[in-house]
Amino acid sequence: MPEDICVVGSLAVDTIETPSGRADDVLGGSCAYFAVAASFFAPVNLVGVVGSDFPDSERRFLETCGINLQGMTTVEGSTFRWTGRYHEDMNVRDTLDLQLNVFGDFQPHIPEDYRDSSFVFLANIQPSLQSDVLSQLAAPSLIGADTMDHWIAQNREELIGLLSDIQLLSINDAEAMQLSGCTNVVAAAREILAMGPETVLIKRGEYGVIQFAADDVFAVPAFPLEHVKDPTGAGDCFAGGLFGSLAAAGEVNRKTLRRAIVHGSVLASFAVEDFSLNRLKALDREQIDGRFSQFMALTDFHS
Amino acid sequence: MPEDICVVGSLAVDTIETPSGRADDVLGGSCAYFAVAASFFAPVNLVGVVGSDFPDSERRFLETCGINLQGMTTVEGSTFRWTGRYHEDMNVRDTLDLQLNVFGDFQPHIPEDYRDSSFVFLANIQPSLQSDVLSQLAAPSLIGADTMDHWIAQNREELIGLLSDIQLLSINDAEAMQLSGCTNVVAAAREILAMGPETVLIKRGEYGVIQFAADDVFAVPAFPLEHVKDPTGAGDCFAGGLFGSLAAAGEVNRKTLRRAIVHGSVLASFAVEDFSLNRLKALDREQIDGRFSQFMALTDFHS
Repeated sequence: MPEDICVVGSLAVDTIETPSGRADDVLGGSCAYFAVAASFFAPVNLVGVVGSDFPDSERRFLETCGINLQGMTTVEGSTFRWTGRYHEDMNVRDTLDLQLNVFGDFQPHIPEDYRDSSFVFLANIQPSLQSDVLSQLAAPSLIGADTMDHWIAQNREELIGLLSDIQLLSINDAEAMQLSGCTNVVAAAREILAMGPETVLIKRGEYGVIQFAADDVFAVPAFPLEHVKDPTGAGDCFAGGLFGSLAAAGEVNRKTLRRAIVHGSVLASFAVEDFSLNRLKALDREQIDGRFSQFMALTDFHS
Repeated sequence: MPEDICVVGSLAVDTIETPSGRADDVLGGSCAYFAVAASFFAPVNLVGVVGSDFPDSERRFLETCGINLQGMTTVEGSTFRWTGRYHEDMNVRDTLDLQLNVFGDFQPHIPEDYRDSSFVFLANIQPSLQSDVLSQLAAPSLIGADTMDHWIAQNREELIGLLSDIQLLSINDAEAMQLSGCTNVVAAAREILAMGPETVLIKRGEYGVIQFAADDVFAVPAFPLEHVKDPTGAGDCFAGGLFGSLAAAGEVNRKTLRRAIVHGSVLASFAVEDFSLNRLKALDREQIDGRFSQFMALTDFHS
């Protein structure tokens, strides 16, 4: 029996433009990407807020993934909306519009049924809210978190406070440098480990992921893709696949963590093949296992 | 018995400034870096030109590596000199001074003893000279080449001509994009493979290397280093370690090529730990094998 995962984060309606095209009013938000990716592996308890305009079809989609929506609150008003445009170099994007709407007053409340979740992921929201979530949980065995440049700059103290309470931090390379003040990735990871987490996962986009722990380093390249349609949510799908894989394994050790990082990379690689969560809507476990095997072939020089 | 490697390229006296310090009038040039890295694995026949000012101590150093210097011509005048300064972000460097000197009239002449070399590497020189070298060799079993932005822009036709005669091209990601006109690495590799080489190795600096062949892709991260003193010659040491490993294996197949790419990555990772070839001067085979094992630990999720 896989362990339960509890995830808290944003649920959004996105409008996205990339060099490959455009998608209007599609499902987005860190919590949605994470939950759907994790749901291929383990039961997911979702905590988030949407407005009264949140499409029924997307709610049904999340339900068909087996995601527990007891913690998804619907508030009169509009759902969080983000509109963004990616450049030809898809590492660069502009936010064209951002409306927090009902997400602006989000106060996560953990339903009674969720309190015993053993794996918890605090997706990118204000660090004080992330800490507040932790205070509502019984005794999770693994707490992971993500964050973003805005909180590192504006809510640094809160964030540092949170870091001493979590085991795993998943951030991108620019954020790792901003948080640590180091331009070298090894030095940055060392500084961040000293702030509390046992494991730091540094996401490097098309170059893959590098994991640092006190006595271990693991690196995996990203899956080489010729056509990337929409990079939105790749990092959240990475974290979702990672946590799903760990929850399915039931324990966190060197071996399960490394396999989970590859599972996370697999989910992220599928996610970017289409807009929003479209590729994950058409994904099954066999395709996931197939790409996991391709990752083995991609990186193997041991045999 | 390892096969013989013949390498043709530049020999230089460099002055290098990096955020870690400065080195004046030190051994450099693509041919020097390649030859020393390769010499840990196999006999190396070097072809290059130096001026009458080339330090005896460096000549003796190359000899103590077991490198055959019969093809190293000394011409009255000054050796090729390059002076460069690396930025805080060591992916960026400025050439402060460049004096071709005797290298400006370099016409590679392959000594009789070298003509049966079975592994040939054409380090970064003008493509027409690279082609001329090939015409002087009997029947090499593996021909590899490197190039640079200048030749891609200025001598494109010559370079394209060369590509149909070689099996392996080793270039960095910016050059791959410039040569192919593609910003996506998979698309770029596909375009370059269509120009002739069976294998394209795309060097991505601190992110590692990705290898493309018609029916195979292999990726390995770079070894994470906290202190990089001088990135000069990393790509040439990569190619040298690669060719040395292949020549020692005696044949090129999926397995030997993948191991060779890791050996190349090992040599490059040592090279950048000190200025010029200083780290390689203090390197031994046991350290190389130790870091190869570290690469296995860094990337393993198979066991």
